[in-house]
Amino acid sequence: MKSQIENILIKVRKREITPEQALVRLRDFPYQDLDFAKVDHNRELRKGFPEVIYGQGKTDAQILGIARQIVRRGGNLLVTRVGPETARKLKATFKKLEHNAAARAAFLKQKAAEPGKGLIAILTAGTSDIPVAEEARITCDLMGNETDCIYDVGVAGLHRLLGEYDRLRRARVIVVAAGMEGALPSVVGGLVSVPVIAVPTSVGYGASFKGLSALLAMLNSCPGGVAVVNIDNGFGAGTLASVINHL
Amino acid sequence: MKSQIENILIKVRKREITPEQALVRLRDFPYQDLDFAKVDHNRELRKGFPEVIYGQGKTDAQILGIARQIVRRGGNLLVTRVGPETARKLKATFKKLEHNAAARAAFLKQKAAEPGKGLIAILTAGTSDIPVAEEARITCDLMGNETDCIYDVGVAGLHRLLGEYDRLRRARVIVVAAGMEGALPSVVGGLVSVPVIAVPTSVGYGASFKGLSALLAMLNSCPGGVAVVNIDNGFGAGTLASVINHL
Amino acid sequence: MKSQIENILIKVRKREITPEQALVRLRDFPYQDLDFAKVDHNRELRKGFPEVIYGQGKTDAQILGIARQIVRRGGNLLVTRVGPETARKLKATFKKLEHNAAARAAFLKQKAAEPGKGLIAILTAGTSDIPVAEEARITCDLMGNETDCIYDVGVAGLHRLLGEYDRLRRARVIVVAAGMEGALPSVVGGLVSVPVIAVPTSVGYGASFKGLSALLAMLNSCPGGVAVVNIDNGFGAGTLASVINHL
Amino acid sequence: MKSQIENILIKVRKREITPEQALVRLRDFPYQDLDFAKVDHNRELRKGFPEVIYGQGKTDAQILGIARQIVRRGGNLLVTRVGPETARKLKATFKKLEHNAAARAAFLKQKAAEPGKGLIAILTAGTSDIPVAEEARITCDLMGNETDCIYDVGVAGLHRLLGEYDRLRRARVIVVAAGMEGALPSVVGGLVSVPVIAVPTSVGYGASFKGLSALLAMLNSCPGGVAVVNIDNGFGAGTLASVINHL
Amino acid sequence: MKSQIENILIKVRKREITPEQALVRLRDFPYQDLDFAKVDHNRELRKGFPEVIYGQGKTDAQILGIARQIVRRGGNLLVTRVGPETARKLKATFKKLEHNAAARAAFLKQKAAEPGKGLIAILTAGTSDIPVAEEARITCDLMGNETDCIYDVGVAGLHRLLGEYDRLRRARVIVVAAGMEGALPSVVGGLVSVPVIAVPTSVGYGASFKGLSALLAMLNSCPGGVAVVNIDNGFGAGTLASVINHL
Amino acid sequence: MKSQIENILIKVRKREITPEQALVRLRDFPYQDLDFAKVDHNRELRKGFPEVIYGQGKTDAQILGIARQIVRRGGNLLVTRVGPETARKLKATFKKLEHNAAARAAFLKQKAAEPGKGLIAILTAGTSDIPVAEEARITCDLMGNETDCIYDVGVAGLHRLLGEYDRLRRARVIVVAAGMEGALPSVVGGLVSVPVIAVPTSVGYGASFKGLSALLAMLNSCPGGVAVVNIDNGFGAGTLASVINHL
Amino acid sequence: MKSQIENILIKVRKREITPEQALVRLRDFPYQDLDFAKVDHNRELRKGFPEVIYGQGKTDAQILGIARQIVRRGGNLLVTRVGPETARKLKATFKKLEHNAAARAAFLKQKAAEPGKGLIAILTAGTSDIPVAEEARITCDLMGNETDCIYDVGVAGLHRLLGEYDRLRRARVIVVAAGMEGALPSVVGGLVSVPVIAVPTSVGYGASFKGLSALLAMLNSCPGGVAVVNIDNGFGAGTLASVINHL
Amino acid sequence: MKSQIENILIKVRKREITPEQALVRLRDFPYQDLDFAKVDHNRELRKGFPEVIYGQGKTDAQILGIARQIVRRGGNLLVTRVGPETARKLKATFKKLEHNAAARAAFLKQKAAEPGKGLIAILTAGTSDIPVAEEARITCDLMGNETDCIYDVGVAGLHRLLGEYDRLRRARVIVVAAGMEGALPSVVGGLVSVPVIAVPTSVGYGASFKGLSALLAMLNSCPGGVAVVNIDNGFGAGTLASVINHL
Repeated sequence: MKSQIENILIKVRKREITPEQALVRLRDFPYQDLDFAKVDHNRELRKGFPEVIYGQGKTDAQILGIARQIVRRGGNLLVTRVGPETARKLKATFKKLEHNAAARAAFLKQKAAEPGKGLIAILTAGTSDIPVAEEARITCDLMGNETDCIYDVGVAGLHRLLGEYDRLRRARVIVVAAGMEGALPSVVGGLVSVPVIAVPTSVGYGASFKGLSALLAMLNSCPGGVAVVNIDNGFGAGTLASVINHL
Repeated sequence: MKSQIENILIKVRKREITPEQALVRLRDFPYQDLDFAKVDHNRELRKGFPEVIYGQGKTDAQILGIARQIVRRGGNLLVTRVGPETARKLKATFKKLEHNAAARAAFLKQKAAEPGKGLIAILTAGTSDIPVAEEARITCDLMGNETDCIYDVGVAGLHRLLGEYDRLRRARVIVVAAGMEGALPSVVGGLVSVPVIAVPTSVGYGASFKGLSALLAMLNSCPGGVAVVNIDNGFGAGTLASVINHL
Repeated sequence: MKSQIENILIKVRKREITPEQALVRLRDFPYQDLDFAKVDHNRELRKGFPEVIYGQGKTDAQILGIARQIVRRGGNLLVTRVGPETARKLKATFKKLEHNAAARAAFLKQKAAEPGKGLIAILTAGTSDIPVAEEARITCDLMGNETDCIYDVGVAGLHRLLGEYDRLRRARVIVVAAGMEGALPSVVGGLVSVPVIAVPTSVGYGASFKGLSALLAMLNSCPGGVAVVNIDNGFGAGTLASVINHL
Repeated sequence: MKSQIENILIKVRKREITPEQALVRLRDFPYQDLDFAKVDHNRELRKGFPEVIYGQGKTDAQILGIARQIVRRGGNLLVTRVGPETARKLKATFKKLEHNAAARAAFLKQKAAEPGKGLIAILTAGTSDIPVAEEARITCDLMGNETDCIYDVGVAGLHRLLGEYDRLRRARVIVVAAGMEGALPSVVGGLVSVPVIAVPTSVGYGASFKGLSALLAMLNSCPGGVAVVNIDNGFGAGTLASVINHL
Repeated sequence: MKSQIENILIKVRKREITPEQALVRLRDFPYQDLDFAKVDHNRELRKGFPEVIYGQGKTDAQILGIARQIVRRGGNLLVTRVGPETARKLKATFKKLEHNAAARAAFLKQKAAEPGKGLIAILTAGTSDIPVAEEARITCDLMGNETDCIYDVGVAGLHRLLGEYDRLRRARVIVVAAGMEGALPSVVGGLVSVPVIAVPTSVGYGASFKGLSALLAMLNSCPGGVAVVNIDNGFGAGTLASVINHL
Repeated sequence: MKSQIENILIKVRKREITPEQALVRLRDFPYQDLDFAKVDHNRELRKGFPEVIYGQGKTDAQILGIARQIVRRGGNLLVTRVGPETARKLKATFKKLEHNAAARAAFLKQKAAEPGKGLIAILTAGTSDIPVAEEARITCDLMGNETDCIYDVGVAGLHRLLGEYDRLRRARVIVVAAGMEGALPSVVGGLVSVPVIAVPTSVGYGASFKGLSALLAMLNSCPGGVAVVNIDNGFGAGTLASVINHL
Repeated sequence: MKSQIENILIKVRKREITPEQALVRLRDFPYQDLDFAKVDHNRELRKGFPEVIYGQGKTDAQILGIARQIVRRGGNLLVTRVGPETARKLKATFKKLEHNAAARAAFLKQKAAEPGKGLIAILTAGTSDIPVAEEARITCDLMGNETDCIYDVGVAGLHRLLGEYDRLRRARVIVVAAGMEGALPSVVGGLVSVPVIAVPTSVGYGASFKGLSALLAMLNSCPGGVAVVNIDNGFGAGTLASVINHL
Repeated sequence: MKSQIENILIKVRKREITPEQALVRLRDFPYQDLDFAKVDHNRELRKGFPEVIYGQGKTDAQILGIARQIVRRGGNLLVTRVGPETARKLKATFKKLEHNAAARAAFLKQKAAEPGKGLIAILTAGTSDIPVAEEARITCDLMGNETDCIYDVGVAGLHRLLGEYDRLRRARVIVVAAGMEGALPSVVGGLVSVPVIAVPTSVGYGASFKGLSALLAMLNSCPGGVAVVNIDNGFGAGTLASVINHL
């Protein structure tokens, strides 16, 4: 951001633009106004990845409108929380778009992202947690990271986790998706020295309160180095893992 | 209310009516009893706008019945939380009725309301918050206010908000609809000196708890001058904005 | 804010300052860095009142340090949530400082604020709600508003409220503090056409859940034109009332 | 219960039955075992009304099975929380059964219940609360009470309530159904000297949290003499009103 | 209330007073303005008992001020939620005032209240619930009711409750105070045909959540005829019992 | 587990395997990796019953895949939370599989489990609680226990429970399923000296909050010897009962 | 209970007592009425241990009064939730009484209880959970069980738990006390085939919400055979463990 | 962990130890059993820092006992949540121990930790959040990281944050502590491309619900790359920041 301001100021000094024009430009940061959305093309500069479209609560027309702007500029497209019907409509426009039904994610890779430094391991406690893990995996992948998925290694059968210990050790960042009692991140966090990103899932019933139970458990995790994101937020976990993996 | 009581008392004094008749009249404030509803025609006098029909939980017949009484008296009709099917039935009776599907609002403007004093700006943090904002916009419009809609200026890309700073400054009242972390009203409230009406929306998932997260954030907003209304209550925000704008 | 940026840009153009200097100045907005606090002297410009010190969680030394900067610049000082002991220490430094023990507010008026346009009525449902109302009253007063306090007019004895109806009608803005079932703002909101600011108080026990019950009731208030602030937030209610009253 | 035990003991004494037989009888209180249900025919003796069938979560076969036993013994049948489809099946068996779709209640009056002592007034704050009120009305009616329904007299338009003051005064017990802020029972409780039974309804949205807001408000009601029942529990309110009205 | 209005209107007609004077009188219902409190002397007329002072959150001076007005007019004085120190101060003024330390209630009986029709039984589940039950007992007593206290008959030892069955049967209204799982009102409600008033208490720990657990259990009570009041609200339970007992 | 480690170590000592091979084996505990699931064949050794498939959130293909591995090894198959459609697909593969629609459980008994030591009684408070009780019953049955089902003996008609007292006394472990106020386990716990396993059900409405009310009541149960499991967790209750019954 | 009823009935038959006398005796089950408490001497017969005094919310006089009755009859005395001051007073009366300050438990062993069948292991996740574990240990001990305490083996350092695996395997019942994320019971439950009793503790801060987080985690525990009791309820866990261990 | 197992196995192979001895050693991982605590000396190997003592709920003797073991081995000592009195006792034993009263942390640096790769910026929204930030700072410092503290830059005065933009940009990891609406991490997360660790604080009142409001806001944070830890968990934030900074 600074350099852009600096450039504008330098132009003012050189009298290439008037102060009034500078003001206009300062206010005119690179976002594109679609009336119902202001597409933040600046985000790629700031965050290393273009704006991701959160599909829920948006009409198909709105999603398409935003997607077009992103694709037009050559960015990688990721739409989260998107059902099969909308995905079909997107595919009609973007032929190469893929849709992962479990993860409810649609994506279009137009260019290779800057590669991450290491491997991101993605664990789930159970089979039912896989959709959330897949959202994380797709996000990591699009953002240039190599991933290793280790699914169904919950604490009720600890030997399954210990049996994958070597794979855990190879990871630079670990994402752990778990519902119900959400105990897996605590156990993993006690075994490794790299950051663990805990994603509570809404898997469970009754007193799982749609993931609240797992969320609270993870926030109270004893071992250091555990980060928590929102319930079912595979995308957020993937992004955080990628940000850390690109350091 | 006082003047009505006064008038009745004066008539008693002048012996135009008996005390018994006065009692009857006092009890007979202007509402219309439809058995399932008491239409509050007095509301326009008291509040400057006729009763608004909250559509949810009412049968089509009940909505129609109340609407007829309001329209018959020449008032502006507003039905909130009304789906497309009911809207169609209403349209069959009131040809000029309009239905905004996103906002789930049906309305019929029969006369110009008393104009508000200034401009009401309506902001959303994201595209998914637009339906709530539209409910506010329609309400403001029917109540005689000029509005300026600035959508998708959430804090994740602050330059989008700052880029619209001039439009913000023109407003006499600002309505801000935001879901998820609900941070936008705090940021806006720190930038302006006019009242900010914060509407939490149920946009989000997991620990957004259907808008609770945004609601709590807004109630704890640091900068002064921020008012909060119920989750998804675009109508309430619009009404409050209009009440303030008519001062 | 804009004009400051404009001035800086004009100076760059006139070559009075270099772009590098401009950058420094842009970053150097008027706040004062005390290490533990950045006193926001700009706030008075933006919001019409200097920074108010939220006393809770601050050490006496921190409060004193910030207070000194505000007083030195001639601003009106308001410290909220401050107990008798800290108040005594503040008085030792600022001889004319007053402390309202019920409201837990310390304040020092150094200059007359810009007067508000009308009268602000401040109501409470019960006697136990008075401390919160007093915080609102002091805030309104320091910010230049005339107030009228109508205490103990809760809905359990409706005639008490109706008996003060004329005073209600004289107000341009109404603040209503209520605990327990928090019903008073709904009743008041149904009677008047001016904005009603509802402040839930933590008065009550058991299922009042320290004000949560009143808060929820107020957020669900039926009549239009009701704004809600945080539990026990007399200061917030007073500020919002003042902001509206200065329009 | 005592007299039954006493009778058995007297028979033991008179050697009409053996102690072993007595034990069997004591254990054999009058309920009928249907495997999936133990129909409590004793309830009518104890409580003045036969067992009422809570329809939710029961299969049609189960409801029919229990209903048959009640009807066979000549009792008045009441099935609550029953949808149109199940009602149709019940009607096929019990020709005279009535179904109130709004209240989701099916009932069959086979005999006049013992009449209550006075009038039960049933109020709602809004039109959307009527289904709950109707469940209460049907319950009261079947249990032998006269009722007076006063609907849509919420606090947002206080004159509507005051306009019905005379009808209020005629009641021996008052049931008040209200959603949203749930303020009506507090206001009514302040006006009358008879018991007020407050029924929170799930009418509302957002921070009404499906009736929680109204429930909490009612539990914190200031004026004495207010009883609270579960959210949407029109049946419970009606039963309590009837129990009181039969004293 | 009506007759007062009527009388005023008749005086207007007879020209004994002017309409302007009538208006003043209408506004001048019998409450006494103490600035910090509006003592509702009308309440005794409306509700059969003078205003009761809720001691919590009031200063000693405020309590004394209100108490003086009530005592002066010959009413029975009841102050709830009042600690030993304040009680001592009250006693200094009102020599005959009594203070029940367990119930935290201070009271002064100046005249016999209108007697209730029957006996009010007051039960507790455990010994720790007694303070709440005592608040109910004192309230009932002051309001003219005969009471029978049956303490420590919780469901963990059912024979204790059944052993007191005869005393239960003699009651016209039953108050049941219980903490923890709050099961006693359900069991009592299944045994009797008179109204049961359930008072959840904050007795318990952990997942009792200060009475919430008992409150929820009571609201979900299966047998008909159970009324619920706020947690620890012995006063409310006593008042409701008395109101019913005076029918 | 120990003996397996010991065996491996002994083989190392005897030079039958190298340390490197030992490490591989230690990591290679008996679970089967299906990519989306790690089937825990070790569980039968550790816990006396093969892995049970929690059907919710799994695709039909995943359930079938896991089921095949369990059946192939001759284990008893239990799939919980499985609807009719998936059950039909399972039946197409496993001809002898049974589906209990109420309990939403599919199961295939291939061999007799080790018999439990005594009788497990399974109680419900009402008819609507039966599905949860049936899940417990099926679980107990598959795990080798004899059961006795006593349904619809809730506390609202205490004589129904007391009438089954002899059956209660025959049980070595008692499972109690109850919704609404969840009082039955407390009453049963006070009558018997064997362990009582309380299963809250989501039966109820309003303030039952989908079983939360019953859950809290059970956690606060007064009499000793009461264990609580998750809401609607018939499977968990059955497993716990079986584990205790096999001691 | 049955045999007592039987005896009474036989006496009626033999005309040793009249039916009226029988009624009196039936009502006169062995509890002792102390006015503020009904001491349940029958409990030892029913449950194998005399009534335990829950100290919280009872006055010293009440505790002493109940304790005297229990001690007088030769029972083992256990008072839970009792502070040092009350303990001192109890010691003045019962010289041999012991007080465990950490567990806040006072006890007096007057006779050996019937011995349990096996060993009860008591685990804690951390050092701060020890007070709750000690309450369980004392309870188990008084009720005749041998215990083995394994403290500070939380999941953050899994090798500590695995290092005690042999001690785990020797237990017939396992009690696990854990706060914060409450993950230990899930891990233990996956390792053993005996019942695991999970006691959430209020150890933690912030989102531990005084043990709620651990409670929810334990209720959602994946492996079968896990029972949950109330937060900090060491006494309940000990009693349940003892009940199971005496089967 | 693997290499230790490997070493033991190699020794078995070389017949330096027997399999039985190997078993003992495997169970004898390096933790030290103090009866009330198992000091995890292995943690430094696994996690790069010795066990940190969580002071809350531990007696002074327990803290001292564990501290001695850590100090004896030359590790850096950190005790969190420790008040002044305990700190004084610790200082009596460890002369060079420091106590930061605001952060409630005691620490003793005995050796330089492995240095982190970059700078960790620590921000607070307000002055009252400083104690939590200081706990993070001390943790980071002890773990070998350089820190830059930027306090009181909350969103109510956005220019204060933007004024420190350059310092933000220099950081490799950013910790943000905020109470009330918890909006600061969202705004910071939108500005930078490095990981942001959000620590909700319990600063606030009313609907801040002791940090819950800020916690929820942070979990719903829009921009990617935001990690959340427990309320007031400065230690956890510091550890996570250090773990990331050492990658």
